[in-house]
Amino acid sequence: MASHITSQEKDFSQWYLDTLKIADVFDYAPVKGCMIIKPYGFKMWELFQQEMNTRMEEMDVENACFPALIPESFIMKEADHVEGFAPELLTVTRVGKKELEEPYVLRPTSETIIYNSYAQWIHSYRDLPLKMNQWANVFRWEMKTKPFLRTSEFFWQEGHTVHATEEEADTMVKDALDMYENFAEEVMAIRGIKGRKTMNETFAGADYTTTIEAMAKDGKAIQFCTSHQLGQSFAKAFDIEFTDKDEKQKTPFITSWGMSTRALGTMFVVHGDDKGLRMPPKIAPIQVMIIPVIPKEEHREAVMTQVEAIKKTLKSDGIRVRIDMSDKRPGFKFAQAEVKGIPIRMEVGPRDLEKNQVVCARRDISTKDSYDIKDLKESIPELLEDIHATLLSESEQHLQQNITDVFDIEGFERVLNEHKGFIRVAWCDDAEKEKEIQQKTGATIRCYPFDMQDQVTGTCFYTGRDATHIALFAKAY
Amino acid sequence: MASHITSQEKDFSQWYLDTLKIADVFDYAPVKGCMIIKPYGFKMWELFQQEMNTRMEEMDVENACFPALIPESFIMKEADHVEGFAPELLTVTRVGKKELEEPYVLRPTSETIIYNSYAQWIHSYRDLPLKMNQWANVFRWEMKTKPFLRTSEFFWQEGHTVHATEEEADTMVKDALDMYENFAEEVMAIRGIKGRKTMNETFAGADYTTTIEAMAKDGKAIQFCTSHQLGQSFAKAFDIEFTDKDEKQKTPFITSWGMSTRALGTMFVVHGDDKGLRMPPKIAPIQVMIIPVIPKEEHREAVMTQVEAIKKTLKSDGIRVRIDMSDKRPGFKFAQAEVKGIPIRMEVGPRDLEKNQVVCARRDISTKDSYDIKDLKESIPELLEDIHATLLSESEQHLQQNITDVFDIEGFERVLNEHKGFIRVAWCDDAEKEKEIQQKTGATIRCYPFDMQDQVTGTCFYTGRDATHIALFAKAY
Repeated sequence: MASHITSQEKDFSQWYLDTLKIADVFDYAPVKGCMIIKPYGFKMWELFQQEMNTRMEEMDVENACFPALIPESFIMKEADHVEGFAPELLTVTRVGKKELEEPYVLRPTSETIIYNSYAQWIHSYRDLPLKMNQWANVFRWEMKTKPFLRTSEFFWQEGHTVHATEEEADTMVKDALDMYENFAEEVMAIRGIKGRKTMNETFAGADYTTTIEAMAKDGKAIQFCTSHQLGQSFAKAFDIEFTDKDEKQKTPFITSWGMSTRALGTMFVVHGDDKGLRMPPKIAPIQVMIIPVIPKEEHREAVMTQVEAIKKTLKSDGIRVRIDMSDKRPGFKFAQAEVKGIPIRMEVGPRDLEKNQVVCARRDISTKDSYDIKDLKESIPELLEDIHATLLSESEQHLQQNITDVFDIEGFERVLNEHKGFIRVAWCDDAEKEKEIQQKTGATIRCYPFDMQDQVTGTCFYTGRDATHIALFAKAY
Repeated sequence: MASHITSQEKDFSQWYLDTLKIADVFDYAPVKGCMIIKPYGFKMWELFQQEMNTRMEEMDVENACFPALIPESFIMKEADHVEGFAPELLTVTRVGKKELEEPYVLRPTSETIIYNSYAQWIHSYRDLPLKMNQWANVFRWEMKTKPFLRTSEFFWQEGHTVHATEEEADTMVKDALDMYENFAEEVMAIRGIKGRKTMNETFAGADYTTTIEAMAKDGKAIQFCTSHQLGQSFAKAFDIEFTDKDEKQKTPFITSWGMSTRALGTMFVVHGDDKGLRMPPKIAPIQVMIIPVIPKEEHREAVMTQVEAIKKTLKSDGIRVRIDMSDKRPGFKFAQAEVKGIPIRMEVGPRDLEKNQVVCARRDISTKDSYDIKDLKESIPELLEDIHATLLSESEQHLQQNITDVFDIEGFERVLNEHKGFIRVAWCDDAEKEKEIQQKTGATIRCYPFDMQDQVTGTCFYTGRDATHIALFAKAY
């Protein structure tokens, strides 16, 4: 099983595809750039949705649902927006054998169709803030695709909120990003870096875009989520106005923010190792895989009785537990549990039962220990918590150890070639130079980290002009 | 509020649109035949999904996800299938400004794209039964649309299972239908009639189709769900084969079954009355709406303290409770809770508090009673159960009271004009005559009820030939 996986060192990209395929997370679809999410992968997405819904509810965000088809004219209304998405738009032009009078585009994102409705729903300050989210499939016809990380159809949540003032909208942008950070750490065991995107990398139509950038095992950057201050541009394009407390007509401020199936891809490349996935327990479809070890047929009844009892106990405490009852050899089952990244593999055989114990193997750090059966109600949840903490701390370490400060373009290129990870520089915020660096090196500015902008000193590593920002450059997914 | 609702008697269709709009369940979309599901409506769909997922898990059905875009050639593979869907297919022909080489249709249902993958996943009898489901948006460009009941984009679950034998597949078709019946009764408080569709009404490509038909308040029939035996037609079209235990290559049998946002529409037309919706508690987004009654400002603190305490108690027991804190008058709030169909409206004022009581008004039967605050943990769940039982029993009565037996076409037409509901007849199962009756009267055969086919006697009401079936005719949504 594991032997079919290319090592990360040898070819990270091939490791990724091998692992996801063998772990039965996805399959290739017969549609260019699209994927099939198989049950093991889809369960992750369902758990993702549950955890996110809980957090959005706490923020008073309500779920709704808008059409997938958007009249082409809507997309045209906000100039930057249409320019940003035009080449990737899938367009429906025909029904049966008949041409449509006005074509529809498949939503690449839903600002335009949602704000068209908001214009009808918002009248007075009493209608604000308006906070909705939708879970949706969205479509961007991509040239280079990779399962979860970049697909032509993907799945996400998109939050869309409207506020009376710019300050309130700024706060919302920040609150959404903080929610994502909490989600990344508490659910996915991922530490990332929060910051603002450069204008080159800002969402089409937004005033500014914030992001969390994570780091894959191969040192590449990966955008985990985004939260945008859209300012008044869409409100103006879609005639959204409200009567304020002072009886004056005003234009509100809008935010949008989203996190997608790409976050699952991020989780795979942050935690995976040469044996396959390593699933953070909160989002693991199976948290404990019990593997009955039955050396002789006479042991079967005793082992199976105990195994079923353990399953029942753990399940009643909400633990996602399964028994591997396939007719494969134990060694095969062990490897399969490993490639799927199941946090705990529990082996139960006659010799363990004599001692009223079971053996638990941790997927994260590959240790094996015996646990008393009577204590499993406590020890399994503790183990799961510890696995989560270990993965999170590894992610933190990997990130911190792979950020390099450089001070000139030679250093920049050396790090890019010889090391991996993020390059931290003093920078002059020049959009043209940014593009020049990208063309020359393939690296882009991932973000201006929020917690470093008061530490700007000296000169730009590239232009020698006065630095205005601390920037993180990296090659990215 | 309620005064804006057209009465059911006057114009049922207008009642439906008025109610759904005022109850804030949906809004019209700027896309022909599509709708926006607003948070109050979408929460119903989320509860629907939860309840259905629990039931599917018990049947060992796993959720997965296939692309929304289907290569046009796939749809063409099963001859009946393409003929059934061709005129309603939305087709993507363009990306950006470029024409696609092979157009994609937006899935009207996913048999073809799913079975293309099944052909690669199924090798031996060990891979069977294969049971997957997907929650998806599907597209059928309809001419006459109505929110939830018939929309050009709708939402559903579609189960797709593969079995080694025809008998196993027959059992699955039945099990799925039984699950839907349980869902209808236990969650939506709807009693329907289970039966088989005539060949005219069978799913495009299926051997046979089973259905549950519910009856709206206006007596029209409404298809609540379907479960299809697809036989071997799709397996043959998509080259799905397996090696059986006897080492022979065999063609498996496939089923598909689905339930959609239309089931919510069914719930609205089965339970609603002139005051608005009546929500079955299991799927009610808000089960208890607390309305604080504050005659003078000096009462505010005492009332609000109690109201918050009650909310906390009920919420901790998993009851979906909300406090109406808007600055509207109590009368307006009462009407709004009514139109939204909230099962229990709880009024809390200073005079109730003196007696340590609250007043609960039931939406289903419009009674009002006082309850001791200390007993609410028990009395509210009991009330909710009783409301469910009452709605279910009303639905049962309405159904039974509006089935009329007729014996000739004159009787048939008289009932159709003067009464409402289902017409039960002895019938000769003639597809051409069935179409003739539909053209003449507008009524269709809804199903051959399972529990009546052993009671066939006498002659067909229409042709005078020997009867072979008991048929239920009705006008339908």
